[in-house]
Amino acid sequence: MTGAESLLRTLLAGGVDTCFMNPGTSEMHFIAALDRVPGLRSVLCLFEGVCSGAADGYARATGRPAATLLHLGPGLANGLSNFHNARKARSPVVCIVGEHATPHLKVEAPLTSDIQAFARTVSNHVRTAQSADDIGPATAETIAAAWGPPGEVATLIVPADYSWSKTEILGQSIAPLAVPFPCNQALDAAARLLREPGTAILLGGKSVNERALKAAGRISAATGTRIITARNVAKIASGRAFYPAPQVPYFPEAALPFLADIQNLILVEAERPVSFFAYPSTPSYMTSDSCRDFVLAARGEDGTAALEALAEGLPPVVLPSIAIPKAPMEDVGLTLDHIGLTLAALLPENSLVSDEMVSSAGKILDHLKSAAGHEFMPVTGGSIGQGLPVATGAAIGCPGRKVVALEGDGSGMYTPQSLWTMARENLNVVTVILVNRRYRILEIEMQRTGAHGFGEKAESMLDIGNPDLNWTGIARSLSVSATCATTARQFSSHFRDAIRQTGPSLIEALLE
Amino acid sequence: MTGAESLLRTLLAGGVDTCFMNPGTSEMHFIAALDRVPGLRSVLCLFEGVCSGAADGYARATGRPAATLLHLGPGLANGLSNFHNARKARSPVVCIVGEHATPHLKVEAPLTSDIQAFARTVSNHVRTAQSADDIGPATAETIAAAWGPPGEVATLIVPADYSWSKTEILGQSIAPLAVPFPCNQALDAAARLLREPGTAILLGGKSVNERALKAAGRISAATGTRIITARNVAKIASGRAFYPAPQVPYFPEAALPFLADIQNLILVEAERPVSFFAYPSTPSYMTSDSCRDFVLAARGEDGTAALEALAEGLPPVVLPSIAIPKAPMEDVGLTLDHIGLTLAALLPENSLVSDEMVSSAGKILDHLKSAAGHEFMPVTGGSIGQGLPVATGAAIGCPGRKVVALEGDGSGMYTPQSLWTMARENLNVVTVILVNRRYRILEIEMQRTGAHGFGEKAESMLDIGNPDLNWTGIARSLSVSATCATTARQFSSHFRDAIRQTGPSLIEALLE
Repeated sequence: MTGAESLLRTLLAGGVDTCFMNPGTSEMHFIAALDRVPGLRSVLCLFEGVCSGAADGYARATGRPAATLLHLGPGLANGLSNFHNARKARSPVVCIVGEHATPHLKVEAPLTSDIQAFARTVSNHVRTAQSADDIGPATAETIAAAWGPPGEVATLIVPADYSWSKTEILGQSIAPLAVPFPCNQALDAAARLLREPGTAILLGGKSVNERALKAAGRISAATGTRIITARNVAKIASGRAFYPAPQVPYFPEAALPFLADIQNLILVEAERPVSFFAYPSTPSYMTSDSCRDFVLAARGEDGTAALEALAEGLPPVVLPSIAIPKAPMEDVGLTLDHIGLTLAALLPENSLVSDEMVSSAGKILDHLKSAAGHEFMPVTGGSIGQGLPVATGAAIGCPGRKVVALEGDGSGMYTPQSLWTMARENLNVVTVILVNRRYRILEIEMQRTGAHGFGEKAESMLDIGNPDLNWTGIARSLSVSATCATTARQFSSHFRDAIRQTGPSLIEALLE
Repeated sequence: MTGAESLLRTLLAGGVDTCFMNPGTSEMHFIAALDRVPGLRSVLCLFEGVCSGAADGYARATGRPAATLLHLGPGLANGLSNFHNARKARSPVVCIVGEHATPHLKVEAPLTSDIQAFARTVSNHVRTAQSADDIGPATAETIAAAWGPPGEVATLIVPADYSWSKTEILGQSIAPLAVPFPCNQALDAAARLLREPGTAILLGGKSVNERALKAAGRISAATGTRIITARNVAKIASGRAFYPAPQVPYFPEAALPFLADIQNLILVEAERPVSFFAYPSTPSYMTSDSCRDFVLAARGEDGTAALEALAEGLPPVVLPSIAIPKAPMEDVGLTLDHIGLTLAALLPENSLVSDEMVSSAGKILDHLKSAAGHEFMPVTGGSIGQGLPVATGAAIGCPGRKVVALEGDGSGMYTPQSLWTMARENLNVVTVILVNRRYRILEIEMQRTGAHGFGEKAESMLDIGNPDLNWTGIARSLSVSATCATTARQFSSHFRDAIRQTGPSLIEALLE
């Protein structure tokens, strides 16, 4: 077999059976091997940022790593910003990058670059295969590194000549390390703190799930401890099916009073809350100076099991009854509240929601608390362009679940190529573009940072409505069926149709 | 003034008056300063790869640096692949990247990353401002570094708190270094070689221009020396107005015999020709083992002046007369030859042509030799996604010239957001999308690399026609007027209309 075939076989043996790819010349032997080694689902993307974001979404939705196949340094470069998000989400990803044949590296061809340097910006594990025989073992190592725990983007660079050379060696699968249970001292300390006033538990990492919320709810009911959740995590169990722990607010003005009374903060796979950005007159840490942190479970430890241990013997909690809202049917100009209400009324149970709503998030998040139980995949690293790719990867990973992408009109333009992959793979993704024709978040930040630049030129840099983007047209041009809504009734009706449909669709929601 | 205002004033004082931007929160003080410090043309792009490619195009077309303004590490990451191309083109670019306020860096906020590490992948000069007072001097240094010679992508990282703090200090403009004339020994050695058999001159870098070609033509006529040109340079004087020096062929099978007889290769701002990719059975260097290289002018030296010195006293050369072709008007299926003929007939004199034709390049390049004199901006670093951004930046830099972007349907999908900026700025760009619905170049490379993967799955990874991309629809959705051509007559007619029009247009050329 070739080195490329060994790579493929080792991926499959290691449980990595999906690869998001945008290959080039150096990767042709990998592509040729797709037919010789059956079993890998290869998903073509028209831009590498779709590959990296889709792998992140796949990992968030399934908990398992997918692979990406990218072409040399520049192909990897195009994937980096969504790998940054994957890194912050602790998503396991096996990032495979082709390299020139080794004798060709000395000649400084046009595409020659320092691939390791690109990779190290987002990967702790960066490994260049040293021979055809080394490809298999290096692949197995990279898969193991991707798993963690916690998960990470692990990069394997494969020179083309090793890919096309013969080898007899496959990588031996390395079982992923078990997610460790936190030490007893951490549990004992947390148990003692639960009896103290001013104690709160912050859920983050992989512990904003149904089990963790249920255990935390029992602890809260029995001890009065506040339960709060982190914002920028891979996935959040959300909706009326789950214990309703409030989230740390986004802006410091709200986060500071929200956290002010906390004297002991028990961290479950989370860090002390910080401001997303710095501002001239607010601190970076959102808890008070007198607040002390206690790590119950570090990143990569099993915070959920730790919470269940703390909750052992405590009585179950009855969830508050939340009325199921009705989708608004008024013939009035469309607002974020209408969209939120529609989602609350119609979002199918067990949906996956990919979030890149940016400035439109607040109101819609409020309504989603009343929706059927779903998993919400928020912004993690703040790099714009993740919403549509994450939805794409989640839909590949979980074909039985409906995926809803909630996307800004500005943020959607970073990786619109995702729509084509959704169409090609006939993915069950409903994309909602929230159209306000502004970089609205920057309008807010312009004031908050004290820049106060509202002159004509500054204004025009925040204005993406000159000219208007036609999202319905963009979607249809990429073979995704699309509708446009300007009233509450239209949006409800289009959304109802969209979730009934198989395959992708897009609703351009023109906000009044 | 604020640090941001000092940055702006120093840019303008240093002759940098255009900035391609996609700002975020950390850059708001720079945006606010746009109205307080008049004179900077700020061009909004919806994706950072458009900013970096446009700055490359601006530099190639004008010879001067533009600035880019990008948001933190991930914003820079999205620009890296086109900066890779700019680096290989030796384009001067002043790359400004916002950073979190310095006290915020310790808290590991979502967007925190190692910006210097991202920047070093494409920049030799990477500088983080150390205070508000340091912003001006650091900006002046960065501009000087960008100029070179040779030009480069020089990066300045500006923490937000320095941007919003007060300063009295402006950067003192540093005059760009003069482009040095090569040393006399190099000239004497070259002059001696011109009398030897088997000598050729390879023009590269900034020396594939009208003056250099004219001087080289005189040398060739007087001495019999072969004149050849490099492929992957920033800009090539092309068309019937210029001395017709043939280009080193792309594929090794053609390049090897083309260069086989050369025993002495005089390099003018060029390196020994290498294969773009490595293949199992061809060497990396395209000249014969016995060929010796002589550097007449290194990168950053004035190769054109050196050629003129060598040609001093030699008689002028009369250019071969080339018949002006007629645009084909047959009602037959559209081919690359039809497109080439149309360009040869109708391309306006002094146009700038941005090339990302990939597999379609060969035939069209042949025809462009007969076109009116124009400047051709080819692929430099091989990173896909440069064609539309480079055209955008060239049109901003040279508003009096027609820009024609020749783009593949696959390659165009990496940075389609460029079309929106063309519409917004009403740029004189005619974009031709060459539609073959394949990654055709990979089909060729699949065979060349010996991978021979033409099974169903491999095939599908090269097939971008499932589903079809509707380029007319994409363009119109981004406010660029668009037409579709399926016959020779339609293409000629649409192209004639397009070059008469002011503002951007796109022709979707459906190849038979």
